[in-house]
Amino acid sequence: MRIISYRKDGAPGVGVMVDDDGFVDIGKAAPDLPATLRGILELEDDGLARVREAAAGKPADISLGDVELDPVIPEPHAIWALALNFEMHLEETSLTTSNEYPQIFLRTPASQTGHGRPLLCPDPAIAMPFDYEGELAVVIGKKGRHIKADAMAPHIAGYSIYNEGSVRQFQQHNRQFGLGKNFEQSGSFGPWLMTSDEFGDPDDHTLITRLNGVEKQHASLGEMIFSVGEVIQYLSTGYALRPSDVIVMGTPGAILPPPDWQPGPNDSKRVRGRTHMNPGDTVEVEISGLGTLVNPVVADGWTP
Amino acid sequence: MRIISYRKDGAPGVGVMVDDDGFVDIGKAAPDLPATLRGILELEDDGLARVREAAAGKPADISLGDVELDPVIPEPHAIWALALNFEMHLEETSLTTSNEYPQIFLRTPASQTGHGRPLLCPDPAIAMPFDYEGELAVVIGKKGRHIKADAMAPHIAGYSIYNEGSVRQFQQHNRQFGLGKNFEQSGSFGPWLMTSDEFGDPDDHTLITRLNGVEKQHASLGEMIFSVGEVIQYLSTGYALRPSDVIVMGTPGAILPPPDWQPGPNDSKRVRGRTHMNPGDTVEVEISGLGTLVNPVVADGWTP
Repeated sequence: MRIISYRKDGAPGVGVMVDDDGFVDIGKAAPDLPATLRGILELEDDGLARVREAAAGKPADISLGDVELDPVIPEPHAIWALALNFEMHLEETSLTTSNEYPQIFLRTPASQTGHGRPLLCPDPAIAMPFDYEGELAVVIGKKGRHIKADAMAPHIAGYSIYNEGSVRQFQQHNRQFGLGKNFEQSGSFGPWLMTSDEFGDPDDHTLITRLNGVEKQHASLGEMIFSVGEVIQYLSTGYALRPSDVIVMGTPGAILPPPDWQPGPNDSKRVRGRTHMNPGDTVEVEISGLGTLVNPVVADGWTP
Repeated sequence: MRIISYRKDGAPGVGVMVDDDGFVDIGKAAPDLPATLRGILELEDDGLARVREAAAGKPADISLGDVELDPVIPEPHAIWALALNFEMHLEETSLTTSNEYPQIFLRTPASQTGHGRPLLCPDPAIAMPFDYEGELAVVIGKKGRHIKADAMAPHIAGYSIYNEGSVRQFQQHNRQFGLGKNFEQSGSFGPWLMTSDEFGDPDDHTLITRLNGVEKQHASLGEMIFSVGEVIQYLSTGYALRPSDVIVMGTPGAILPPPDWQPGPNDSKRVRGRTHMNPGDTVEVEISGLGTLVNPVVADGWTP
């Protein structure tokens, strides 16, 4: 089952995809369910089972073109994110991390947007560069503390895709990433939540990031240093993971360019093969079997 | 005006203190206002002015003893926190930070509790030590981007007190503080929001932290390296600060013990004068003119 969070005429809704375009409006199929996916996941009984039952056998009554997609969970209780969870990203950045513990920071809801909506590229006078980071997102469906890695399954509602957009200059202001990972609408989360039964084992999937159609990242999710279960075990040592919590699993490295490659004006001087995002670009993150998260990049023209 | 967020019979409420014990129930005085302080701050018109008007001249109708205090904002959109914002804390930890940019990380709503409620001390088998950090909390009342330091006033709803409780061992697992600043119910936020007109200039106030009645921190808020206005200017460069956002301004150092002092079993080996928190302790953070945030420390006996 693939579930979307959407907005129509300003009001939030939840839908179940019937094919790649049409979906069942859960607000109509099950008006007694909460109007947000977070609300559904927070129900004491199994909210996802009620969604599944409500949508079963129904034809699509709206199509994606008629709505605006929100982030899969627009206002999660927490968005936990991993730094440096692929060897290739460690190597290309020359950064270090612990072998024993995942490296974790947080993002705010305002830093994320939905599938199809603009990622805001900071004004170059404020900060540059602005980078994509294609990642697997895990959505928690059931509260739990002290969850062992091999007992994670009942706590996971499903999986999605995250573009963990990063403003490098601000990330490097200080030891904590802070604002560098939290610029307004700098990341994206979508297009949908795919339930665990349909997604299967993350290790069996491949992640590809494309900028303007050109492959920039291509890795197996099996290469993650800390697995989903290990991160859930770590976090739940100190904290009860809650329905709607999102865990963003870290990004792989860039595809290496040919040996004679010379960086152009939009290419990273630091990381071979990485190209920065600029207004006018289109960025896609695909996870095999799950879908593709697509966003245009637009100049941040915020006026107070 | 001093505003509390409370819980009675499981339902959230907002109150305005009449004296140090009794308060006006805003749900009764102005039933058309939202039931949470976040909801009131998010109103398009001036929610605090409506609260003030509703409470004006009314006698108290409930007392603090009849309710449970929630964190001032139980579910803020974001809790931004500063590391190393006092010279004395920099010196005692021997850590470094940027002179140019504040060092910022995030806390989750689940990591905080209200005045009078227990701070949960991790089981020593999981993590130790558990440390207090007395801090000034700033609550945003009006959305804004690119706010200059000297134009911060209209964006601030008021001030409160934070005990930014920290699990050092987890903080040191990696470069990002991550879970070390986010153990379940490890920090506290209260007792109330004092509006800016009543609190005045943070620089004129003193912060004192006491453990079991003994002074452990004592500093002027004028000693902060980055002022409230400078932090608001920095954050709003990249992000539109939102009503209910909380900024926790960093903790001062410990009061130095006599030269012949030797650390006991509950005293920090690393920071002279700091005593760790243990079950059975009572910790208070007082800010002059604002109030005192008091919490008992209780062993974290989480059972799933």
